[in-house]
Amino acid sequence: MNINGKHFTSIWMEEKGDVKIIDQRKLPFDWVIETLSTVEDFYQAIRQMKVRGAPLIGTTAAFGMMVATREALLTDDFAKSLKEAANYLKTSRPTAVDLFYAIDRMEAYILAQAVDNHILAKATTAALTYQKENIQNCKSIGENGLEIIQNIADEKGGEVVHILTHCNAGWLATDDYGTATAPIYLAHDRGIRVHVWVDETRPRNQGARLTAWELRQHGVPHTVIADNTGGHLMQHHLVDMVLVGSDRTTRSGDVANKIGTYLKALAAKDNGVPFYVALPSSTIDWTLDDGLAEIPIEERSPDEVTFIDGLHDQALTRVRLTPEGSLAANYAFDVTPARLVTGLITEKGVCKASKEGISRLFGDEMGEM
Amino acid sequence: MNINGKHFTSIWMEEKGDVKIIDQRKLPFDWVIETLSTVEDFYQAIRQMKVRGAPLIGTTAAFGMMVATREALLTDDFAKSLKEAANYLKTSRPTAVDLFYAIDRMEAYILAQAVDNHILAKATTAALTYQKENIQNCKSIGENGLEIIQNIADEKGGEVVHILTHCNAGWLATDDYGTATAPIYLAHDRGIRVHVWVDETRPRNQGARLTAWELRQHGVPHTVIADNTGGHLMQHHLVDMVLVGSDRTTRSGDVANKIGTYLKALAAKDNGVPFYVALPSSTIDWTLDDGLAEIPIEERSPDEVTFIDGLHDQALTRVRLTPEGSLAANYAFDVTPARLVTGLITEKGVCKASKEGISRLFGDEMGEM
Repeated sequence: MNINGKHFTSIWMEEKGDVKIIDQRKLPFDWVIETLSTVEDFYQAIRQMKVRGAPLIGTTAAFGMMVATREALLTDDFAKSLKEAANYLKTSRPTAVDLFYAIDRMEAYILAQAVDNHILAKATTAALTYQKENIQNCKSIGENGLEIIQNIADEKGGEVVHILTHCNAGWLATDDYGTATAPIYLAHDRGIRVHVWVDETRPRNQGARLTAWELRQHGVPHTVIADNTGGHLMQHHLVDMVLVGSDRTTRSGDVANKIGTYLKALAAKDNGVPFYVALPSSTIDWTLDDGLAEIPIEERSPDEVTFIDGLHDQALTRVRLTPEGSLAANYAFDVTPARLVTGLITEKGVCKASKEGISRLFGDEMGEM
Repeated sequence: MNINGKHFTSIWMEEKGDVKIIDQRKLPFDWVIETLSTVEDFYQAIRQMKVRGAPLIGTTAAFGMMVATREALLTDDFAKSLKEAANYLKTSRPTAVDLFYAIDRMEAYILAQAVDNHILAKATTAALTYQKENIQNCKSIGENGLEIIQNIADEKGGEVVHILTHCNAGWLATDDYGTATAPIYLAHDRGIRVHVWVDETRPRNQGARLTAWELRQHGVPHTVIADNTGGHLMQHHLVDMVLVGSDRTTRSGDVANKIGTYLKALAAKDNGVPFYVALPSSTIDWTLDDGLAEIPIEERSPDEVTFIDGLHDQALTRVRLTPEGSLAANYAFDVTPARLVTGLITEKGVCKASKEGISRLFGDEMGEM
């Protein structure tokens, strides 16, 4: 993605091996690039949500395992140290399955290599390959989702296609292009008239802060709305499709995504609006069937509800929103049952949100890497 | 309602005829009492949302018509001046029907009186009567809703009853007691263990600011949540009932209430959670059937989405939430179709949200005052 004419991915490795990220907690008001040097840096970057979004968490973890390899080489027991780092990184956040997928894949690969002077180079190549695949998957999701938008545009005789999205499933949530945004960027670039309703996505406002900023950088028309608004818009035929990302998808098509996604899926169903989920297969958890019962839902600090950061006098400023002494709760994700999902847009194509639909695209064996 | 041991209604007349309000835009961080002296003051108090909530807007308008009577006595054409004031006050906000109900009722009453030295006293008595009725209606709603909470408590064998509410339908939204909160306060006072999930209610955060503050003042256990959260809570059996207010209810039971109410109603339906609306009959619009097609939905300034006020260094501070240049839209209400409503809790009892249910309680003639 280009920012002021310069190409960025959300995480990148520089020539001497430094891994850089954009501290997304500061966007869109501050542009802060940070270097991650130690396993602890990677753990904190994920945990504190300097980086977020399931695919990007995966790539960050892959680079984290590269650094874990470097750190393990300095210890007496390489395998033990690598495993400890892997287990530690896995505790950074609980819901996005890409985290576990990336770490397991990197760990298995690295432990299968001889511990010699080539192993760090191999781990580096593996992390870069992971990122390349991630980027390619998002590109493919873009192509596959584009057809859906094109069809709606055709049905509307070229009138503007209104797409509602929740949270940020944009290039900032991935390595590049985004998942939910990939078809939108592509449609816009190819001259299809699109307009995006951006749910602000309380409590962390990833929609208002990140998605709005991304879309504006790319020149895509968009309007920020309170999360309460989508149902009303759908009732009044102001939404042609809902398009969101996923943090974890069961093999039967249940989708864990940012809290509030389920409410939009209900409204879409009630109003006959197609509800699509864009996801790379790295977010599919092949071990789970029942998303509601089985996907662990992260609970985060109540401070994210009781305080909010915004720009005041050109400085990021934190203000209190609730009376002193009122409790708050902060569930970060919810699960949208497959029955409410019109289709999954994956790198291999679009399928029904069902065991059959998913197996048709991926076979049953994707659980083994 | 008692605040620090002193009894307050949300609007009150002092001995020399001054009408006082609490500027609710500053709560819970600042406690500012304001005097409304002219029709313009009343218009601005409603329009700028110093007072808000359908029943309180009604009472404010009733007092506004009292002041309009005083102003009209200074003009050459009493009736013309009074009608102009009435029409002007009606343009302050579009959705809550109490505004129109209160103004029409006061206008008809005042115009039926002789224009003599008693007319201001009569208008004053009429406004005070309107307020008294409003308070009595909320008390009755409390009694009628209490039974529902009591039944749930009995079914749960005395375990805590979890009630989700949206926006502020508390004493601040009415003259006293509240609509949705009236049964909650009563249940709490009578020893039923209740806990309230308080939707923060973006964009103006009436839940986080007003409902949380009210409940805390009264000692009712509560937890503030992002508006995105209710669906997840209902999926996980953490909500026993949803209880909200109404700004306008059609005679067929469709309910216009704060934006986002519809999404909670969908989630309640999907999870078998009872969804009740508490309302005095002043919010029933006897001329409308189809809420979705016929109730005018207020659009407010996008600034309410792009900026938010909160407490910073002990001062109310406004921060920007969105990137400069991103548009925002701000629909203030949505309509929940009667099919999603378990029951209406009114001053006359609980009924089905249907033409038959409403007529059974009120007859068909409530449209005439």
